[in-house]
Order: sequence, then C-alpha cells, then structure tokens
Amino acid sequence: MQIILGSQSPRRQELLAGMGVTFTCVNIHADESFPPELQAADIPLYISRAKAKAFHAGDEKAGGAVKRDEAFVLITADTIVWAEGQELGKPTDENDAFRMLRLLSGRTHQVYTGVTLTTPDTQRSFVDTTDVTFRELTDDEIWYYIRHYHPLDKAGAYGIQEWIGYVACTELRGSYFNVMGLPTEKLYVALKELNAL
Amino acid sequence: MQIILGSQSPRRQELLAGMGVTFTCVNIHADESFPPELQAADIPLYISRAKAKAFHAGDEKAGGAVKRDEAFVLITADTIVWAEGQELGKPTDENDAFRMLRLLSGRTHQVYTGVTLTTPDTQRSFVDTTDVTFRELTDDEIWYYIRHYHPLDKAGAYGIQEWIGYVACTELRGSYFNVMGLPTEKLYVALKELNAL
Repeated sequence: MQIILGSQSPRRQELLAGMGVTFTCVNIHADESFPPELQAADIPLYISRAKAKAFHAGDEKAGGAVKRDEAFVLITADTIVWAEGQELGKPTDENDAFRMLRLLSGRTHQVYTGVTLTTPDTQRSFVDTTDVTFRELTDDEIWYYIRHYHPLDKAGAYGIQEWIGYVACTELRGSYFNVMGLPTEKLYVALKELNAL
Repeated sequence: MQIILGSQSPRRQELLAGMGVTFTCVNIHADESFPPELQAADIPLYISRAKAKAFHAGDEKAGGAVKRDEAFVLITADTIVWAEGQELGKPTDENDAFRMLRLLSGRTHQVYTGVTLTTPDTQRSFVDTTDVTFRELTDDEIWYYIRHYHPLDKAGAYGIQEWIGYVACTELRGSYFNVMGLPTEKLYVALKELNAL
C-alpha cells in the first residue's frame, strides 16, 4: 500500500523517515481557518481533515502521486500550541514571536497534533497531546533565540529541537516527536492496523 | 572560562553544541565500576564523580586541554537505564540486547543522568530523571531494531533518537535530552550559575 504524506514540512518528512516508512510527499493547499467555537485538540483535528479534503487522488496538483486503482493511505496532520486558553499560530513578526515566548515562559502549555489517515474507502483521525513546561526566560534569552533561529515559521514561535528546547524546556509529558509535528508511535500503530506497514 | 567536556560521546558533544556552548573535549579513562550497595540515581552520580577524579588538568593525557592558570569547568556525566530494580548497562551481545529490550517492553523505566561540574576550586553534582514508557514490543520488532541499529554501545540497548524511540516510546516524563545523555536545561542553568556562560 502506497503511503502519501500530505505535507511539505521537512520536520514531518524527517519524522516519518525516522519511523522507517517509505513514502511519497504531496503538497496540499488547504484552507487552514477553523470555526471560532473550536477549542484546543479539536482545532488540529479539524485542520488535518480539511487538508485531507483538499487532496484529490486524481488531481494534477497532487503531482500524479497516486496511480489509478492503487491502494493508498494519505497522512495529513496539523500541530498547534495551546497556552492560557488560546491558540498560538505562526507569529506575524519578531515582536509577535516575543509576545508568544513571553507567554510560554515559566508556564506549562499543550502541544496538540491532529492526524487524519485517509484511504480510498475509510478515514480515521486521532490527536496526541504533549505538555511542555518552560522555565522563566529572560528577555535577553528570548531575543537571542528569535534573532538566531528566526522561528517565524513555527506555531508558538519555537522548535523544541532548537536551542530553546535544549536550554529552556524543564519538562515534557507525552511524546517528544509529537511536539516536532507527528505523534510517531501512535501513527506507527495506526498504520500497522491499516496493514500499510 | 574554558568549558571542557570529559566525554568522547558524539551524542553528548552534539547536545552541548545544541546548547550554544563553545567547548573542548578530552578523553577520560575512568574506572566505571561502583560499590554494589549503590542504587538508581546514586550510580551515575558516583560515576560522573569518578570521571572527574580521573581528570588531571596538567596531565599529558588530557591533551593539553587546560592552559596553566586558566579558569575552567570540567563537565563529566554518566547515564544509566534503571528497570525493575536493576541497572541495565551496555549489552554484551545481541542476545543480551534482546533480553534488555524484552524487559523494557510494555513497562515504564527510569533514565538517570548524573553530571559533575568541576572547577579548580569547587565541585558540584546533580542528577536528572526521565521516566520512559515503551509499549509492548513484538519479538520481530526487537530483532529488527537490534539488527538494523546495533545498539551494543548503548546503556539499556536503545537510543531514544533512533527507530525504536519513534515507534515504541508511548510517553516520556522529564527531559528528552536527558535520555540522550545530558540534562541540557539543568546543565545550562548550572553553567550560568558558575558564570561559565
């Protein structure tokens, strides 16, 4: 069964490769907005389904990833940072990144990754939660990180695998790889259950 | 202040570099045996101190790492896996690796890293604990990992940053980097307190 990752994120590609999975990538352009009443884990679940909906196996835009009549499973995922009752998306600029990291400093926040597995006949979604605790950060530390690592492409303005993850994360509860973008263990078990591995 | 890492482990070097620390490495040959009455966290604490004791700043074997009269801090560390009341060291062969991974399967174990910071005048040690939970592994999965990753150089016969960490670790409580070999956040704060950073 062909495994298709509906993501251009180098981190998700690296994680799936680390699981020993052979896969192809497609670029999916989905509307990532969500109904305002959605909270916490329901947001990445919704967006991972929206990404699946925007994939059309026969579509030119899918880059001919799926050959006619071939069995496949499409993996779509979305990761959000949830802190103090609000979603932290990608920061709009350096000041917005500073605001987010100031909010995360000295607190525990949640990272949710929603995953949707879509085959020609079925669809299944699940979410994984990791609690991440940061120690109190100084303004200098926050600016050092922003200036050296430019985290404007990252939800919550940080990458756990970067300097700030090394020096500021005091505790993690759950899956480390989920914070990076895929709940690898849960995904592996789900792909096994689909007989995709 | 010069920072010296008393370890040839590529993983520890990578972790210290990830913290943004500039350092030199020295190879320390220490006796890694410990008194049989020591348990759990006390073992890596003891061994990290034994490694510090085996370092002599003026010694030829230290590779001339420390210039005369220069301020320095030496980092020595040891990591052990503690499962079902016993220490799992490096496996002696593939069957021993299988025995260890079978023991870790479907259970939560502890990873302790002891760190000793030694300056010309002072010494300070601390330990960090991470709880790691593995799901139940099949014999095939264990053999696949042993045959493909040869974990004979690793305490407890696994590396969390390898395939088995991706597909088998269901939960982690504490520091991920501590499992890899250094409690990076605690070490960063301790080096700051010594004015080494």
